[in-house]
Amino acid sequence: MGISASAQFNMNRLWETLDRSAAIGPGREGGLSRLALSDADKEMRDLFVTWCKEAGLEVSVDRLGSIYGRRAGTDNSLPPVLIGSHMDTQVNGGRFDGILGVLAGLELVRTLNDLGHTTKRPIEIIDWTNEEGSRFSPAMVASGAFAGVYEEQWVLDRPGDDGPTLGEELKRIGYAGGAPVGGRPVDSYFELHIEQGPVLDARKIQIGICTGAMYATGHLVEFQGETAHTGPWPMERRRNALLAGARLLCAVDDLGWDFAGTGGKATAARLVAWPNKGGIISDWAQAIVDCRHEDPEQEAVMSERLRRAIFTAGARANCDAKILDTWTWGGPIFDEDLNQWCRQKADELGYSRLDMVSISGHDSYFMARVCPTCMIFVPCRDGITHHNNELATLEETAPGAQVFLHAVVNRADR
Amino acid sequence: MGISASAQFNMNRLWETLDRSAAIGPGREGGLSRLALSDADKEMRDLFVTWCKEAGLEVSVDRLGSIYGRRAGTDNSLPPVLIGSHMDTQVNGGRFDGILGVLAGLELVRTLNDLGHTTKRPIEIIDWTNEEGSRFSPAMVASGAFAGVYEEQWVLDRPGDDGPTLGEELKRIGYAGGAPVGGRPVDSYFELHIEQGPVLDARKIQIGICTGAMYATGHLVEFQGETAHTGPWPMERRRNALLAGARLLCAVDDLGWDFAGTGGKATAARLVAWPNKGGIISDWAQAIVDCRHEDPEQEAVMSERLRRAIFTAGARANCDAKILDTWTWGGPIFDEDLNQWCRQKADELGYSRLDMVSISGHDSYFMARVCPTCMIFVPCRDGITHHNNELATLEETAPGAQVFLHAVVNRADR
Repeated sequence: MGISASAQFNMNRLWETLDRSAAIGPGREGGLSRLALSDADKEMRDLFVTWCKEAGLEVSVDRLGSIYGRRAGTDNSLPPVLIGSHMDTQVNGGRFDGILGVLAGLELVRTLNDLGHTTKRPIEIIDWTNEEGSRFSPAMVASGAFAGVYEEQWVLDRPGDDGPTLGEELKRIGYAGGAPVGGRPVDSYFELHIEQGPVLDARKIQIGICTGAMYATGHLVEFQGETAHTGPWPMERRRNALLAGARLLCAVDDLGWDFAGTGGKATAARLVAWPNKGGIISDWAQAIVDCRHEDPEQEAVMSERLRRAIFTAGARANCDAKILDTWTWGGPIFDEDLNQWCRQKADELGYSRLDMVSISGHDSYFMARVCPTCMIFVPCRDGITHHNNELATLEETAPGAQVFLHAVVNRADR
Repeated sequence: MGISASAQFNMNRLWETLDRSAAIGPGREGGLSRLALSDADKEMRDLFVTWCKEAGLEVSVDRLGSIYGRRAGTDNSLPPVLIGSHMDTQVNGGRFDGILGVLAGLELVRTLNDLGHTTKRPIEIIDWTNEEGSRFSPAMVASGAFAGVYEEQWVLDRPGDDGPTLGEELKRIGYAGGAPVGGRPVDSYFELHIEQGPVLDARKIQIGICTGAMYATGHLVEFQGETAHTGPWPMERRRNALLAGARLLCAVDDLGWDFAGTGGKATAARLVAWPNKGGIISDWAQAIVDCRHEDPEQEAVMSERLRRAIFTAGARANCDAKILDTWTWGGPIFDEDLNQWCRQKADELGYSRLDMVSISGHDSYFMARVCPTCMIFVPCRDGITHHNNELATLEETAPGAQVFLHAVVNRADR
């Protein structure tokens, strides 16, 4: 039963797949710009499907385009153990964020094949559609729908920044699958990810055990004003929606600084407007803003200030303000039994480890709503991410990957 | 000699051409969205050229695409009297801004044809390329180059918001002409324009005599930061270029309000950023901002505060700030002799009139640098402009057009 305690992840083979991925949808030097459902995303998906089939997995695609590669267990009546992450990136994305988690799933399966080991439960590796939200807002919509948080049709209707909806682009690239989205028993969910923060690298700790998510609130906000000439139109009659957005962005940054002393953060991520041209005042703007704090009480204060800032910004610019979407997450959402198992395994293998909360959003946040979920972090250089200089090394990833392998197999053999 | 004092502009025929124009490049209901060098601009240019030729004018196009329709005088060795404005519009533009001035020039020529009158000097009517700057920043580049303020090649190289340069688009629509841009003797320049402010309409005054331009300073500003994740990246390491832009926009609006009591204005017109997406901090932003005041000393104070605000905004967001372009105008630039002639004519015809400064930018600002220039305003409803509801009526335009007709002919017969 089980695999040998000394069974090893084939890190070189994992790194070969990461290198292959790094050539698909290149962005700035060393980075990727592989937006969800772009041609590059399709190319990466096709390669991943090929790899899955070569590894003997049964591939299916759900109605939101998420790809599942299933490896049968000895008792296929049992709910599967899932391993997932995403292969889409930000516009100035790196080569590891998300991709590592999916390809580590693939490598895990390949390792089991090499070992000739069939787990008791089936294992499924997943590439979630549009985790980043860099083309279709908000982020993590496919895992959100899997967990029943978002409605399928709503996800399909999300407009892309460049025009077509998520559903239209799914069809265009041939990944509008037929499998249902969630609604089935799942044993557990595992995700291996780079930390996307500087802690592990700065402290030279090998593995982060994710106990939960930093509390966060995000909003998609719309302002409505009126166009007019930038010259003669009196200040007191102006209804500049772009300005309303700018007021909000500044207030959000101030909010972040007010809570920075206790680790709080608030971000002015996006502001678009129309017409947004010289000579004319804009009558429409949309902004994406968020705030995050580890302490739920502090986050609640930040969140309320964020909400008020939206309407204050609108009022100061004499514009109507509306919150179109809101997303929230946070708390000790990950499974303590799985985490405890990982801690023991790390200790057994002699790896340094640290309990930590995740600050970035992950598909695991939604999966934690439907099954015991475990997220393992590996170091990334200087915490740089969402940047072409994002860097994880084979050597520094190996300890986390090793614990990940054993944790998944242990669970799947249960 | 001359035309009869009772000679009349054919307002109905002018309005027919305005109505034809109003169907080319429709925008929101009742308005136009005829951006410079777009297909719609080409269609309008073609129609204008046809009309010019039908009126017996000799048509030429200069290297920046401005169209000249020349009516010979009795002494063609004399420098011509020019009449001009523009037929491009803002994205949410009206049917009169600019267009009225060009088509009034056409109607003036048609009226002279009907009267069988040949002026002593030649008359040229001009459609200036890209007055609005709504696609290629800055505004008024073609008249600026005519006046020697901008270099031709620099104008041709202006990038469009949607990609191609001004020069590329000129070629695409077939208006990259061969005539030199300026550099030739000009007798005088006349422009008839809607006020683009509420004064004439509110006070029920029929004609505005433009004595000068409100002092103004505008900048195209660029901020450079660094991309990073919106979550984990510490507040103190963030270099959010979008936020730098937002800080500037807010400072500019505050500046406008600080001087609003004495009629000052400052506008946050445009902010674009990259990647400008949820989940990632932007590393690049560009903004267009300006300030305006009738009093040059006050404007100088505003302008200096505006300049400082750019670098303060950059510094607060930990970004590099750079001013890419600056444009300034203002002062009693119009010709007092021509204005005095117009005042007398208005009085003679029994029209109410008001001396005023223009707050909007116009091609006449640049032409005033090379020849005596006269700008006549007619009322526009409630001062609404750069908006689909922009409205000038035939009845309220007639007095200004009448004075315009006689002023031009008087000058051309001199």
